[in-house]
Amino acid sequence: MSILTATLSMTHLYSYFPLLATATEGETADSALVLASVLLSLVVIYFASKLGGEICFRINLPPVLGELVGGVIVGVSVLGLLVFPEGDFHANNSLLMQFLQLGTDTTPEGLEAVFAAQGEVISVLSELGVIILLFEIGLESDLKELIRVGPQAAVVAVVGVVTPFTLGTLGLVYLFHLSIVPSIFAGAALTATSIGITAKVLAEIGRLSSSEGQIIIGAAVLDDILGIIVLAVVASLVKTGEIQIFNIVYLMISAAAFLIGAILMGRLLRPFYVKLVDEMKTRGQLLLVSLCFAFVLSYIAQIIQLEAILGAFAAGLVLAETEKRKELEEQIIPIADIFVPIFFVCVGAKTDLSVLNPAIPSNREGLIVAAFLVIVAIIGKVVTGFTVFGKPELNKLAIGVGMIPRGEVGLVFAGVGSASGALSPSTDAAIIIMVILTTFIAPPWLRIVFKEPTPKTQEQEST
Amino acid sequence: MSILTATLSMTHLYSYFPLLATATEGETADSALVLASVLLSLVVIYFASKLGGEICFRINLPPVLGELVGGVIVGVSVLGLLVFPEGDFHANNSLLMQFLQLGTDTTPEGLEAVFAAQGEVISVLSELGVIILLFEIGLESDLKELIRVGPQAAVVAVVGVVTPFTLGTLGLVYLFHLSIVPSIFAGAALTATSIGITAKVLAEIGRLSSSEGQIIIGAAVLDDILGIIVLAVVASLVKTGEIQIFNIVYLMISAAAFLIGAILMGRLLRPFYVKLVDEMKTRGQLLLVSLCFAFVLSYIAQIIQLEAILGAFAAGLVLAETEKRKELEEQIIPIADIFVPIFFVCVGAKTDLSVLNPAIPSNREGLIVAAFLVIVAIIGKVVTGFTVFGKPELNKLAIGVGMIPRGEVGLVFAGVGSASGALSPSTDAAIIIMVILTTFIAPPWLRIVFKEPTPKTQEQEST
Repeated sequence: MSILTATLSMTHLYSYFPLLATATEGETADSALVLASVLLSLVVIYFASKLGGEICFRINLPPVLGELVGGVIVGVSVLGLLVFPEGDFHANNSLLMQFLQLGTDTTPEGLEAVFAAQGEVISVLSELGVIILLFEIGLESDLKELIRVGPQAAVVAVVGVVTPFTLGTLGLVYLFHLSIVPSIFAGAALTATSIGITAKVLAEIGRLSSSEGQIIIGAAVLDDILGIIVLAVVASLVKTGEIQIFNIVYLMISAAAFLIGAILMGRLLRPFYVKLVDEMKTRGQLLLVSLCFAFVLSYIAQIIQLEAILGAFAAGLVLAETEKRKELEEQIIPIADIFVPIFFVCVGAKTDLSVLNPAIPSNREGLIVAAFLVIVAIIGKVVTGFTVFGKPELNKLAIGVGMIPRGEVGLVFAGVGSASGALSPSTDAAIIIMVILTTFIAPPWLRIVFKEPTPKTQEQEST
Repeated sequence: MSILTATLSMTHLYSYFPLLATATEGETADSALVLASVLLSLVVIYFASKLGGEICFRINLPPVLGELVGGVIVGVSVLGLLVFPEGDFHANNSLLMQFLQLGTDTTPEGLEAVFAAQGEVISVLSELGVIILLFEIGLESDLKELIRVGPQAAVVAVVGVVTPFTLGTLGLVYLFHLSIVPSIFAGAALTATSIGITAKVLAEIGRLSSSEGQIIIGAAVLDDILGIIVLAVVASLVKTGEIQIFNIVYLMISAAAFLIGAILMGRLLRPFYVKLVDEMKTRGQLLLVSLCFAFVLSYIAQIIQLEAILGAFAAGLVLAETEKRKELEEQIIPIADIFVPIFFVCVGAKTDLSVLNPAIPSNREGLIVAAFLVIVAIIGKVVTGFTVFGKPELNKLAIGVGMIPRGEVGLVFAGVGSASGALSPSTDAAIIIMVILTTFIAPPWLRIVFKEPTPKTQEQEST
């Protein structure tokens, strides 16, 4: 009794027997076409991710870089197969939507509704992808090791926030004579670290559980939180001219309380979790109970203004300490295999490379500022590795390089900045270029500094 | 560089710094809240499916029945946690949406947009669930066995369409004095078989690959196609007073061409598929290549007016004949474990049991007609088993019982019928009741007639 398929078939039949359609047609999207467009999008995403990943693997680059590049190629910058209804994009910007329209008698409005629904569904799938990635990373991380390297990670995180912020802001003010507010915004955008990219590369080269890897992950998590706080400060400074102490205190307390609370609660609930899973007899019990735990923590993190991925990471950390870790790690692999590529391909697909085109005069100013920002972005993070104290045996350059890719918070700065009117379009574009370049430079570089040996098949390396 | 999380965090920050929000707020849903609502919905779905499944397993009923009942309980009929924006339902009918609203300052319009987006996403996830279920069923089926039992399956399918249609239509006209058009509609609704429910129960009791199981699956697939054709005939009869031969011929040819074409093409492409998967070195290669194949066939089936699940089933059948079958079956299990429960819980959640309430006078006429339809629905399918020729060793009652659950096409009749004005609300309700009851009766009955031995843990039984 599949009522879902029923709705589906009904819309099928409506397009089949148009006379029947009057009762329900309107602004809602044809659900048969939405499903068809999601299926097509997933095929495009998987094709791009595997083609890019396999090529990068063969030329000894990290596969995740191939997924990003594959995303760029199918995305808005090149082929326009995978376009999202953000900004000025409509169904007629999407090759996939135009392909879908062939053979159906959808109206332009109907197609626009399908385009919006498909974008919504694929976006949520890609968000689930990064949640599952961070859950897997948490599972493969070692809480004890993370706490042990905690002081080093904290120093790396703080230095990695202060250095690029100071260098970037002062440089823009004194070298480029920008006014103070956009300079602070751009400087703040330099503080972020993309935990997703870095963790994926570390997993790919089998260094996630090394001391360097755990310092990078720990520092990246702290950076995510610091980034949220820095943005709160900067945004309130821009809007009200003063710093809203309450927001900062609230964010710091809620982040600390969430992470510590999740880990303590997790330790308390662990015996019940193991007992519950052992008691259950139906298929998928371990996976569903664990995912429920991860989704609840992600939900809480999301709703208290942190990031959902922090919740998923905390859930992974907690469950990694149970006796189910091994079994769960094995079961999560296929799930991650189908969800995580959606995230990386979508990141690539949403990246609009047209801001890099020097033939467009308005891009040039941004390109010069961008060149400066990229240099500061790299220097500001590479130095962090050398601040690690008391561990002469560590690969300090690797730690610094691991912190280079900017990400979520970096782009949030660009977005919030341009929405608030504080950033000119060229500075905004410069920040986006900085985020793109650091993200694409870091994965191959990280691989080089870790002096990765001759490639084996990836199954053996990762996980 | 997660632009997705960026969009997310931006909406976060908009609710945080409302002054920044003016630029983008509007009729679009807050993507941070959409993600939060999807995460919550998934937790509710998994909780309902496992609670229901475990209870049913312990009292020796099929777990899938528990998932359906769990869905009914969290759905529109009882708790109202999982409600879909269909019919007259709005965000204030959904307890989950009201919970989500606590602690956020969303406007009612904003919440309505989140409600719509969450419904869209969960609906697509549940459609992906039934696609993956049918892909798994196809993988576990044996094409040679299916072709071997083809004649028997064809007889079962045809008898199972003709008998209930004739009995139902004549009974309604002569016993209940309904006019001819609604009688034909109701009779046609009796012809369907829900392949999803039946296949899942067969897998749960380990009888999917038995001769009985393969006859049921083969007949259910044919029934799905026959149902689409019957609906085309009936609907054109109602609308134009004549039968549109072209549509019928088109549907029959496209269904036959699709199934045969998919299997032949699959046989041709099989060596390339194996070679491609063996050549690939990055994680998840087998799974992603196979899912791409399944999604492409699902897309084609969907777009030529058949059902996406037929494409997924055909893809599974084809890949089952390759040497990768075993490995793929193992990797698809965790995927099915997280997707398939979404389908069954959503089916339950969308079932509105209020049509069963005899205290509401308008329901009573429907209930009497429903009682008649349920009896015809059961008899009309049970007899089919006894038409199986040349196989005295088969459990013929089991075959008939396996055909009982109605489904997609049955509900499509109710939907199309009431939309076209041919069905009165009470006849419409009677059809829905018939679909509900046959769906809920069949799983435990099927288990009884297969004389299932004492329960082992389900892992051993299924797959």
